[in-house]
Amino acid sequence: MPVGLTAPATHALHAVPGVRLGIAQAGIRKQGRKDLLVLALDEGATVAGVFTRNRFCAAPVLVCREHLQGAPVRALVVNTGNANAGTGARGMEDARTTCAELARLMGIRAEQVLPFSTGVIMEPLPVARLLAGLPACLADLREDNWLSAAQAIMTTDTLPKATSRQIHLDGRRVTVTGMSKGAGMIHPNMATMLGFIATDAAVDSTVLQAMLGFAAERSFNAITIDGDTSTNDSLMLIASGAARNTPVLDMQAEGGRALLDAVTQVATELAQAIVRDGEGATKFISIRIEAGRSREECRRIAFAIAHSPLVKTAFFASDPNLGRILAAIGYAGVDDLDVSRVDLFLDEVKVVTGGGRDAAYEEAQGQRVMQRSEITVRVVLGRGDESATVWTCDLSHDYVTINAEYRT
Amino acid sequence: MPVGLTAPATHALHAVPGVRLGIAQAGIRKQGRKDLLVLALDEGATVAGVFTRNRFCAAPVLVCREHLQGAPVRALVVNTGNANAGTGARGMEDARTTCAELARLMGIRAEQVLPFSTGVIMEPLPVARLLAGLPACLADLREDNWLSAAQAIMTTDTLPKATSRQIHLDGRRVTVTGMSKGAGMIHPNMATMLGFIATDAAVDSTVLQAMLGFAAERSFNAITIDGDTSTNDSLMLIASGAARNTPVLDMQAEGGRALLDAVTQVATELAQAIVRDGEGATKFISIRIEAGRSREECRRIAFAIAHSPLVKTAFFASDPNLGRILAAIGYAGVDDLDVSRVDLFLDEVKVVTGGGRDAAYEEAQGQRVMQRSEITVRVVLGRGDESATVWTCDLSHDYVTINAEYRT
Repeated sequence: MPVGLTAPATHALHAVPGVRLGIAQAGIRKQGRKDLLVLALDEGATVAGVFTRNRFCAAPVLVCREHLQGAPVRALVVNTGNANAGTGARGMEDARTTCAELARLMGIRAEQVLPFSTGVIMEPLPVARLLAGLPACLADLREDNWLSAAQAIMTTDTLPKATSRQIHLDGRRVTVTGMSKGAGMIHPNMATMLGFIATDAAVDSTVLQAMLGFAAERSFNAITIDGDTSTNDSLMLIASGAARNTPVLDMQAEGGRALLDAVTQVATELAQAIVRDGEGATKFISIRIEAGRSREECRRIAFAIAHSPLVKTAFFASDPNLGRILAAIGYAGVDDLDVSRVDLFLDEVKVVTGGGRDAAYEEAQGQRVMQRSEITVRVVLGRGDESATVWTCDLSHDYVTINAEYRT
Repeated sequence: MPVGLTAPATHALHAVPGVRLGIAQAGIRKQGRKDLLVLALDEGATVAGVFTRNRFCAAPVLVCREHLQGAPVRALVVNTGNANAGTGARGMEDARTTCAELARLMGIRAEQVLPFSTGVIMEPLPVARLLAGLPACLADLREDNWLSAAQAIMTTDTLPKATSRQIHLDGRRVTVTGMSKGAGMIHPNMATMLGFIATDAAVDSTVLQAMLGFAAERSFNAITIDGDTSTNDSLMLIASGAARNTPVLDMQAEGGRALLDAVTQVATELAQAIVRDGEGATKFISIRIEAGRSREECRRIAFAIAHSPLVKTAFFASDPNLGRILAAIGYAGVDDLDVSRVDLFLDEVKVVTGGGRDAAYEEAQGQRVMQRSEITVRVVLGRGDESATVWTCDLSHDYVTINAEYRT
């Protein structure tokens, strides 16, 4: 049961001029479900990507990195049901074959296609079925197909994830629309399983990559469900340029800043949607670390709390067993941390002052907050001015059930 | 249900001359259970300790470290039911009061007492009940009380954990007997929750500390249940000297080596017992990483696999979803790892060759191994001569149940 998340309404997802989406049922893993997606970009689009740092990264990730160096991207192809990871040389060949066939059908070059896969690891990609599904995708290409596309990239997700913003830039209305998928194996390191954000703004390609890096750090790189960094994490930002604004050359200037904010908001909402739909999630937990010496140490402590199975099961049980949070702060690897300066809040309740239980704290207060479905853990380190926030969910019986039954 | 573990028989636990143990029911957290233990050491004993690196380490850990610097240790006092961690200045006072009262009763100095606590974090130690239980412990002091002592330090453990070895040293029979506790919040960083090993050998105190470091690295520091490093981890090695051998001055010389092996064996068996009795464990999993460049990188990869909730739930389900192991190897943080040289074995079955699925591997083979209750995952990195082994268990519904209900 997702926490505070519903499926987006079709009308809430603004089309992005210059970006068309087509969906098919290719039977990659299961019959009768949307599992293949093509995004076709008009000429002139700019594309930026960030990818997993997992050393066992999937074949499509390797091919994406390669193709992004070369010819302008004209198409993205995404399958669900199979990750094409841990598949060695054959996996690379399958990813290249996919690009070549889509390029042939579209009259472009293979290097202009980016491939993406998500699903089970270490099984061969059923490439024949995938290729057979491509014509149906092309026949289905439409600008208003975002919701259907978000459905086509789901794996253990219970809801499609997509959102949209519109801003004014250079006197023109500009759209930013994005979608994501992912519910388990979520601890992105650069990006999440799969996220696609598109805008019709015209943006310089270097600026586009910088915008994506900024937004990823504050969204997909700030979430965790189970601490498992996927082999296939990819987050793409597409700028079609169809809005015909003066191209954005500086993301700190007025127009650039507005677009950066919109992209970051879309990315954050999509990343949070993944946590809200985390496998077995019953609670959405924001972990904010303040007054640290560096953003890095704040993130380290936040992730230690977010990854602790003991903290996560306590949230599942609505049990204010908050010493478990202190233990996680203590083992996060900030070696010179002076615990006697640490304060801890659960929403509005102060639990710990100076490293020990706050004198006024009563269990009933913690209990009251723990009953909520959305909770903020705030830790004040008392040693600097930096802060960071990450988002996670609890660890429930359903997480175990889902992951013990995923393939069966 | 512990995996391949039964309660030790009383007669299998050899008394250690010079070390007496006394147990009481002090009602620390629950009535009617053994929860307080005193170890009394004859004059002349040497004691070495390794402790948690958690910055939020418990008050008794801080007092232990302090007291180990000073007067010869004559007594150890251990309570279960309350960890006296995250308790600030009051926690320190409570730990000191405990030492002072036991010293008064025994006619020794407070600095000669080491305190240990385990149980719930961030609740005040019920020190009055603890003190009231001390006389009963002293009245119960006996050398053959190890099994009862192992029962007195249990928390969520389902079985007491203790083992014993005898060797010949300098023409004399020498005993090494130890006990441990712990089933959750287990990812020791120096040592586990609580472990006590005693020998009647005479050992130089510097050598004793070195022996303990060597044994801890290969035993308690090589296990994980949930990746949560406790606030109270303490592992103690006591040498009473009652065997009156020529004191051991070199752990690499013949006699020292024999004692080191016995201590390491006892420590390893006790550490493995903690994993076998891991919260909700249904499988005991050995993870061996070979052909690495350093022992450190082997341990890093082994722990990445051992901590992955996805790997752990796959073992629970007996599902050979082995791509999850590859993903964990890939995100372990060995940045220059060449995955095309990595082989993976599940017991006798070769699953991966050169980073991809082995051509001869069939799912039925993996399925067969996954059904076993004890499984070895072997990863060959193909980049050096170093290796390391860690032990862990699966992640089951019962882990969630136990930790969602721990305090209620």
